[in-house]
Amino acid sequence: MFVYDFSQGNKDMRDLLGGKGANLAEMTNLGLPVPPGFTITTKACQVYLATGEEPPGLREEVTEHLRRVEQARGRRLGDPDDPLLVSVRSGAKFSMPGMMDTVLNIGLTDASVHGLARQAGDERFAWDSYRRLIQMYGKTVMGVDGARFDEALEDAKRRHGAEHDVDLDAAALRDLVASYKRILREETGQEFPQDPRTQLDAAIRAVFESWNAPRAVIYRRQEGISDDLGTAVNVVAMVFGNLGPDSGTGVAFTRDPATGARGVYGDYLPNAQGEDVVAGIRNTVPLSELARLDKRSYDELLDIMARLEAHYADLCDIEFTIERGKLWLLQTRVGKRTAAAAFRIAVQLVDEGLIDEEEALRRVDGWQLAQLMFPRFDENARRQAIAKGMNASPGAAVGRAVFDSATAVEWARRGENVILVRRETTPDDLDGMIAARGILTCRGGKTSHAAVVARGMGKTCVCGAEALDIDVSARTLTGPGGVVVREGDVLSIDGSTGEVFLGQIPVVDSPVVQYFEGTLDPASGDDLVRAVDRLMKVADARRRLGVRANADTPADAERARAMGATGIGLCRTEHMFLGERRRHVERLILAESDTEREAALEALLPAQRRDFIEILAAMDGLPVTVRLLDPPLHEFLPDLTDLAVRVAEARARGEEAAEDARLLSAVRRLHEQNPMLGLRGVRLGLVVPGLYAMQVRAIAEAAAQRIAEGGEPKVEIMIPLVGSVEELERAREEATAVVAEVAARAGVDLAIPIGTMIELPRAALTAARIARSADFFSFGTNDLTQTVWGFSRDDVEAAFFPAYLDMGIFAVSPFETLDVEGVGRLIRLACEEGRAVRPDLKLGVCGEHGGDPESVRFFHQVGLDYVSCSPFRVPIARLEAGRAAVLHGDDPGSDSR
Amino acid sequence: MFVYDFSQGNKDMRDLLGGKGANLAEMTNLGLPVPPGFTITTKACQVYLATGEEPPGLREEVTEHLRRVEQARGRRLGDPDDPLLVSVRSGAKFSMPGMMDTVLNIGLTDASVHGLARQAGDERFAWDSYRRLIQMYGKTVMGVDGARFDEALEDAKRRHGAEHDVDLDAAALRDLVASYKRILREETGQEFPQDPRTQLDAAIRAVFESWNAPRAVIYRRQEGISDDLGTAVNVVAMVFGNLGPDSGTGVAFTRDPATGARGVYGDYLPNAQGEDVVAGIRNTVPLSELARLDKRSYDELLDIMARLEAHYADLCDIEFTIERGKLWLLQTRVGKRTAAAAFRIAVQLVDEGLIDEEEALRRVDGWQLAQLMFPRFDENARRQAIAKGMNASPGAAVGRAVFDSATAVEWARRGENVILVRRETTPDDLDGMIAARGILTCRGGKTSHAAVVARGMGKTCVCGAEALDIDVSARTLTGPGGVVVREGDVLSIDGSTGEVFLGQIPVVDSPVVQYFEGTLDPASGDDLVRAVDRLMKVADARRRLGVRANADTPADAERARAMGATGIGLCRTEHMFLGERRRHVERLILAESDTEREAALEALLPAQRRDFIEILAAMDGLPVTVRLLDPPLHEFLPDLTDLAVRVAEARARGEEAAEDARLLSAVRRLHEQNPMLGLRGVRLGLVVPGLYAMQVRAIAEAAAQRIAEGGEPKVEIMIPLVGSVEELERAREEATAVVAEVAARAGVDLAIPIGTMIELPRAALTAARIARSADFFSFGTNDLTQTVWGFSRDDVEAAFFPAYLDMGIFAVSPFETLDVEGVGRLIRLACEEGRAVRPDLKLGVCGEHGGDPESVRFFHQVGLDYVSCSPFRVPIARLEAGRAAVLHGDDPGSDSR
Repeated sequence: MFVYDFSQGNKDMRDLLGGKGANLAEMTNLGLPVPPGFTITTKACQVYLATGEEPPGLREEVTEHLRRVEQARGRRLGDPDDPLLVSVRSGAKFSMPGMMDTVLNIGLTDASVHGLARQAGDERFAWDSYRRLIQMYGKTVMGVDGARFDEALEDAKRRHGAEHDVDLDAAALRDLVASYKRILREETGQEFPQDPRTQLDAAIRAVFESWNAPRAVIYRRQEGISDDLGTAVNVVAMVFGNLGPDSGTGVAFTRDPATGARGVYGDYLPNAQGEDVVAGIRNTVPLSELARLDKRSYDELLDIMARLEAHYADLCDIEFTIERGKLWLLQTRVGKRTAAAAFRIAVQLVDEGLIDEEEALRRVDGWQLAQLMFPRFDENARRQAIAKGMNASPGAAVGRAVFDSATAVEWARRGENVILVRRETTPDDLDGMIAARGILTCRGGKTSHAAVVARGMGKTCVCGAEALDIDVSARTLTGPGGVVVREGDVLSIDGSTGEVFLGQIPVVDSPVVQYFEGTLDPASGDDLVRAVDRLMKVADARRRLGVRANADTPADAERARAMGATGIGLCRTEHMFLGERRRHVERLILAESDTEREAALEALLPAQRRDFIEILAAMDGLPVTVRLLDPPLHEFLPDLTDLAVRVAEARARGEEAAEDARLLSAVRRLHEQNPMLGLRGVRLGLVVPGLYAMQVRAIAEAAAQRIAEGGEPKVEIMIPLVGSVEELERAREEATAVVAEVAARAGVDLAIPIGTMIELPRAALTAARIARSADFFSFGTNDLTQTVWGFSRDDVEAAFFPAYLDMGIFAVSPFETLDVEGVGRLIRLACEEGRAVRPDLKLGVCGEHGGDPESVRFFHQVGLDYVSCSPFRVPIARLEAGRAAVLHGDDPGSDSR
Repeated sequence: MFVYDFSQGNKDMRDLLGGKGANLAEMTNLGLPVPPGFTITTKACQVYLATGEEPPGLREEVTEHLRRVEQARGRRLGDPDDPLLVSVRSGAKFSMPGMMDTVLNIGLTDASVHGLARQAGDERFAWDSYRRLIQMYGKTVMGVDGARFDEALEDAKRRHGAEHDVDLDAAALRDLVASYKRILREETGQEFPQDPRTQLDAAIRAVFESWNAPRAVIYRRQEGISDDLGTAVNVVAMVFGNLGPDSGTGVAFTRDPATGARGVYGDYLPNAQGEDVVAGIRNTVPLSELARLDKRSYDELLDIMARLEAHYADLCDIEFTIERGKLWLLQTRVGKRTAAAAFRIAVQLVDEGLIDEEEALRRVDGWQLAQLMFPRFDENARRQAIAKGMNASPGAAVGRAVFDSATAVEWARRGENVILVRRETTPDDLDGMIAARGILTCRGGKTSHAAVVARGMGKTCVCGAEALDIDVSARTLTGPGGVVVREGDVLSIDGSTGEVFLGQIPVVDSPVVQYFEGTLDPASGDDLVRAVDRLMKVADARRRLGVRANADTPADAERARAMGATGIGLCRTEHMFLGERRRHVERLILAESDTEREAALEALLPAQRRDFIEILAAMDGLPVTVRLLDPPLHEFLPDLTDLAVRVAEARARGEEAAEDARLLSAVRRLHEQNPMLGLRGVRLGLVVPGLYAMQVRAIAEAAAQRIAEGGEPKVEIMIPLVGSVEELERAREEATAVVAEVAARAGVDLAIPIGTMIELPRAALTAARIARSADFFSFGTNDLTQTVWGFSRDDVEAAFFPAYLDMGIFAVSPFETLDVEGVGRLIRLACEEGRAVRPDLKLGVCGEHGGDPESVRFFHQVGLDYVSCSPFRVPIARLEAGRAAVLHGDDPGSDSR
């Protein structure tokens, strides 16, 4: 069975009937006024794509279902006297808007066009419908370049002095039909088929084939939709909204998709077809106008909307047409909505008893929560948008416009906030992007260099604001209506909406963030804050994953705790070696004797101890995982090239520069071609005597002092970059001895777990051996992604990620969302093999993926104990951890093994 | 059963009895004169190490076996009148020379020492035996620092005016016994035990425990011996070679271990014990002297040697003692031998009918063959060795001595051959090591920086020549006897023997290489060349693995073919972009428009085509796998720091340097922090328009032309650095289209397989998907090792490999021998999952491991079709591929799944 009448399906048959077909069937069975029609299944498409031929029996099934439609409408397809016309539309399981093909008005021929004219009493309408058919059919089925038809249409308008399509009369349209047919003949050597059934069969095949159109393939890659699904095809009797003032077409929402407010929202366009709305030729009126124009249809629509919302238990998005006073529903689906609307609606539906709290949690996600947490422009401020581009990287940024990176860097250095404005950015602009508060480009989409790099930096970006024109030499930006922005003028850009404003707009913190930080009581917040609060409580109650934060300072630790983190999963120690202490690190590196080196280490010890005491105090009673020093030593020295130039310049001036020359020699000695693959992590710890011992001593002494102060320190030591168990064993032995010595001296019991990062493929591949010597694993997904793929984020993100996203090689940067197939496979393997050896092995993740919604769900599935992420992302991880438990069940890995 | 009498075991019981015990048992059962004794099993040791106690019943079994020994010798252990003395020696499955403990003369006490003196009629002998027991027991069992005993001995010698130990008389030795006992008391608070059985039990425990001594643990890690095996313990009745002129001790070989020549070889030391030979106090005499000293024992020994060799069917290494005219065998084992001896003996044994050809193949290995292929000093040349160090990296190097790296670089630049002489090297010496022909150090062993780095470079190195003394400021090297080498004097160093010679010794090519290159007919070569020829034929007949070569030039290709390569597994194209063509590459990189870039590519096309035509001609009829451009573009530009300094200097001189400044800006733009993880391989191919298409065109056109010339080109295109199947698909589509176009234009059929490198963990992890789009996989084990471990060879080899080898974290550099546990696991996984999807998938390896003996065996086991390595290593790979088939069977993976 390859064909289903609408009365034979339902909304749960999306796999077979596609989203559109399943919903048309659901509405039909609800008794709603849907034009008669049928759906050819995705299975038929799969067979066609695999074999190149329609599956056996399909033609006969179509014949039978077509007959039913003809009976229901009392017309025959293409009947010269009173033709039935049908539309042929794609409809895949997952919505792929605009990606595949549609052919309307099938059934019109040189003969039946007259019958349609007579029946409709409107000759212009009939010829317009016919020329639309030939245009769509020519393009979609016969593969003619659409521009040829557009030229002929423009030509006709010019000849008839018509401004718009609608100004062409019946005679002009008849001539246009002749022109279109000539184009088909010239381009393909074939005639437009006069047999309606031939038209129908060819259109069905064309829709099947459109599944593999390049743009559809790339779209699927980007959205992560499987190529194997195929599309269903819906064949529906045409109804017309353009048959006079008692006809029309519209869109309706059961709640406001922007705010979530209850009520009737939508637009209506009298005497028009759906395509005309898209073409934007005439302005729509608010849906409420329909009450005035056609009260009966309006009331019927409202009644249907209420039924659909109750039925779907969600916001519905409905397309309808009124043909001479008769309401027809053409489509419905669960409607898209803004982040704020999603939270509000989910909670409203719980309150209305339509869904339970778990279902409400399914209805929101971490990306939406993230949207709500960005600072935004004060809604009450006066504003003047001069353009709108893509909302490439969210946030609100204000600064002076600059037109090149050097200026951005220079102005930023003197304390100015700047917005870097470029036609498009290149890797040369990196410095400028770093220096700027926000980035604005006139070219490129969400995968452009500017967009990708800005998102990676977490920097506000609006890209592709095409209405703006840059003159770099004049240092001006010209907007619509002749608005001119000069270098130094203040701009405000909204990365969440894509809007660009002249002048400074006040930026306000998100009330959701204020709520998370505890400065806003949800009871005194608006309904959005209350909705967030309610769903966070549901998520916290359901989640099995712990959520910790990556925090290196007491301030970050406190912030993280406020945000709901129940520990620190990654406390990096390298930042503690900057500033004043850098001098000691330099001494350590430049030491020419053991004595010098030990003196430098000794100087660092009290400072390190103080750091840890403060952090342990801030997180008293909660676990704090301290990672021993990871980066290569030369990161604490000046840049090789800069220093070499400085020395050369000094010498050219006849100066000696002895100090710099000595430094240069050390930098050269330590210089690595690939520092990411160099002497760092545990390698450094094993090769530089005393370094790790000093850090471990500082940690242990800090813990001892906290105990003496009556605190409850729960510190854990983490060894980075382990590739083999022998490395871990050596480092562990040394650390254990130091801890024991400190404990004995202080007379306290210091139970400090020692674990390892799993951030190299080899560590994951040998997890069973490493687990014997580790109290815990913490997956470092940043490094793991780098080594599994063999690229470093710094080096390649700007160089080829935009191109890869465009080509569909990546759907998303693997540094943003975990690459489950590659990196995830290693993580799963390490979890399974590590736990097999040591069932109580604690497992966590401390890469940036720990705060990415999709990745959090994966971490839940593989059975980690916790994720750790930046403090700002802690609420997102909490929400997604709760959702993961609801979506995938509590049992770790239950749905994955 | 934890104890075996020697009569109860045999040579195949090494797992249980250890190597020494198994061979003592074998000899006992052959009826040879072995002193009575027994072996405590490795199993007993394992139990002891796991529980800290002797296994139940062990003590009773020892008692019973000890009684048998007492009966056989007619003496009781420690009998005051006529004591039985026994030795307690470790003996593991694999030889660990000097790593574990031995205690001799157990059974001596204050009382029995007198009995021994009476029985032996030699009081001095008895007291000397007693002081040796206390010394060994004190050190081994009671844990006293050996230096304390040495000091007391030196003290005694000083007091008695004795030059050597043997000059101390009985009275002096009795005093020494008293001193030793006092030391024990002072150091441990305990007395030397006067109960013989207590001595025995404690010695057995000490030997068990010596298995976990740090040096033994490290040795095992370095040799890849499992920690779980444990050691057996051999308890043997003592026999004495130091009881007068009719006593003695010696070592015998059944063939010459140096050359493999048949005959009697060995050394004999009259009136001495085995330890005295090691101590080197007196000089040994050739074994043939024994015929004169003790004809009966000599004849008996010769008879036994013939029996043992026939029995073991191999060269035997025998230790024996003659006690007052009675011959005793203390140990035998299959003897170590030089590489040349190994080949000669293996073939001799076949000719003698003792082994078959497959067994002969098992008896040699690729490392030995490699030894035979290095150039060597002319054996006929006059030579004067001034010192001997470690043979750290083989080969023969001649050059002028220089004492610092800067001088090495400077002299090498002006065309001198230099030997870099350093106390020890550091990473600062890298430039000098690269510039030198050979490296000589006075400090450090085979895992020192100099040794590790030189082996990595394939450069001759002698290290740790401690007899030499360097005075860097005087620029002299002083040797034994006051030999002085001044900077500029010529040295010759032999990295295969560790010898250092004054002056220039002529270097000759290895006759084995001449044979492989076809310039030496084996029939006219010596017996070594004939032996190699014979075993290579056996290997070629047995091996299942194909052997190809990595070759980029026609000359290399021809050399590889001569060496027996049946194809090129890796033809890199980057070397083709050097020299004159670099200008075009610079144009390509600096192109500011499509036109400029295309012009540069067009200029490169004919040159590339010529390259491929020549290589395909050289390898006509054999497969040639061409890898498209892999390295990042900036490798073709000058070094950033050098250029920045040049520009700064020019500007300081007031010059404009516009050209350099423009270049600098390009270099900066392309500069990557981690080029190994940057824009290279397929990423470059996808991002730089036209680059791969140009290369593919050159390849296809070359193949077409070779066909036109009547040749049989079998070229394959390999895409480097693929991480996801989508990358491969894109590159493949482009290449397929170009090949099709060239084929159509030339009117020939071009069947060019397109495959991929598997050199990133992600490629291995997603091999099942990648296999669908690849005609072959070629494992790039260098990059795979880098990414699996997260370190780059260039950056870390010098920085921490020496330390890691010393710590036992590595047994060998993973860049030399494949890391089976980590990298190998991914390779196995990719092979299995790739072949599951595509059973005809061709699998090969083209990293340097393709020529490493141990790695070749792994590649055989996982079922690869071929290995590819440098031309010089092709014979090694052929030999090892044959050995792998013999050792592991033909069936791929049969013993591994």
